[in-house]
Amino acid sequence: MGLAELDVVPHATGAAAKTVARHQEPQELILHAAWFCPFAHRVWITLEEKGVPYQYKEVNPYKKEPHFLAINPKGLVPVIEYKGKALSESLILVEFVEDAFPQAPNLLPRDPVERAEARRWIDSINKQFIYPHQRLLQAQSVEDQRAALDDVYRFLRNFSESIQGPYFLGEQFSLVDIVIAPWIIRDWVVTQHRGYRREDASPKWKVYADLVQKRESVANTLSLQEHTIGIYDQYLRDEAESEAARAVREGRTIP
Amino acid sequence: MGLAELDVVPHATGAAAKTVARHQEPQELILHAAWFCPFAHRVWITLEEKGVPYQYKEVNPYKKEPHFLAINPKGLVPVIEYKGKALSESLILVEFVEDAFPQAPNLLPRDPVERAEARRWIDSINKQFIYPHQRLLQAQSVEDQRAALDDVYRFLRNFSESIQGPYFLGEQFSLVDIVIAPWIIRDWVVTQHRGYRREDASPKWKVYADLVQKRESVANTLSLQEHTIGIYDQYLRDEAESEAARAVREGRTIP
Repeated sequence: MGLAELDVVPHATGAAAKTVARHQEPQELILHAAWFCPFAHRVWITLEEKGVPYQYKEVNPYKKEPHFLAINPKGLVPVIEYKGKALSESLILVEFVEDAFPQAPNLLPRDPVERAEARRWIDSINKQFIYPHQRLLQAQSVEDQRAALDDVYRFLRNFSESIQGPYFLGEQFSLVDIVIAPWIIRDWVVTQHRGYRREDASPKWKVYADLVQKRESVANTLSLQEHTIGIYDQYLRDEAESEAARAVREGRTIP
Repeated sequence: MGLAELDVVPHATGAAAKTVARHQEPQELILHAAWFCPFAHRVWITLEEKGVPYQYKEVNPYKKEPHFLAINPKGLVPVIEYKGKALSESLILVEFVEDAFPQAPNLLPRDPVERAEARRWIDSINKQFIYPHQRLLQAQSVEDQRAALDDVYRFLRNFSESIQGPYFLGEQFSLVDIVIAPWIIRDWVVTQHRGYRREDASPKWKVYADLVQKRESVANTLSLQEHTIGIYDQYLRDEAESEAARAVREGRTIP
């Protein structure tokens, strides 16, 4: 099924379209992304935060171009192409950007203990939040939706207790915020369709999520809701055919 | 069930026991480990490679001490206790040791692209190898064992093709080698019980695995096979009650 058949535009819209337009010139670093992909979004926000020169290339995951498949046979986004190499996996890419461009702002603490603790939270977002959130989207029965929502709230309450404020690690916006941000700005889907409310996770979570959503790098990479819901319709009916959707449907790990 | 009931000694034996004995003095960095745990083994090998002063504390996972549970409520090993903080997750810990003790030998490349590629292999070991290897141990039917063995071989062949030699990244022993090493030195279990042979993965894999097994940091942290098989007996009958064993039995991700 192509994106057009889903009534989904094949490119970013709204504020994100303006950011894409500003990043069309060839650069040493190329971000291959899909505008609606939350994993790609992590890397995009990181590049915006670091102020690194980059070229944005839209990948239509339902119609991948030969060059993209040549550098990245698995065909998953996001990919960073840099000096002829193709790098993948969103968490590795956000650390790569930090390593390759060590100038301020520093998105991970310099202290090794604090850095390990930040990575522990990033790891827990991936292991304890993304999967139940995806189950929440795809669950069809009220019981399954309730169980997934409970798991989501349980994680967010635990996470909230460790928010130092205003951002997770304090004054400095960091990779911990970036790694969860794409799910914050898409949570209107589960609010409209699954009964999720930020304030029901915890008041502290609501304050934090509202703030992250307003962050310039986050707001500037966000497409319009009316052009996004077409993507989510498939997930909400549990008919999506992405790797993540199939994995969750079959009870496997998201690859 | 306690370790004694499994006819398993509650401490390291052989070469590993000598290494434990050399690391009993109080130090700023304490490794809380279980001698038979491959995840803890990654961190132990890393500390040995770096030549960092550390104190080794044995955790009996079936009988956890109050101090250990106080600093680490989930109770999983490995944990590094450092300056009053408890850090966890083996992959985060090996990076922590590298960050906190940046002196040579460098266990990750300094070049950001090479570093990202090394992390990609580490990630793929965790996602594509550990799980099928665990299924291979626990699978009871010949068909399930065959399917798991095929998955293990498929990963190892793919991995082998990228070995630069003699170690994965070339001359320098690195975190990529360390992260897979604990499964290399325990593969006699699947050789004896599941028909696995290093040379059946690939000749290149056999040469590499034989070499990693002889590495001083690896050999010096290894306990005797006759005191290890008692642990694996439970896995081979699919009766083990560790978090990993239950996860694999239920088709969930290893936590």
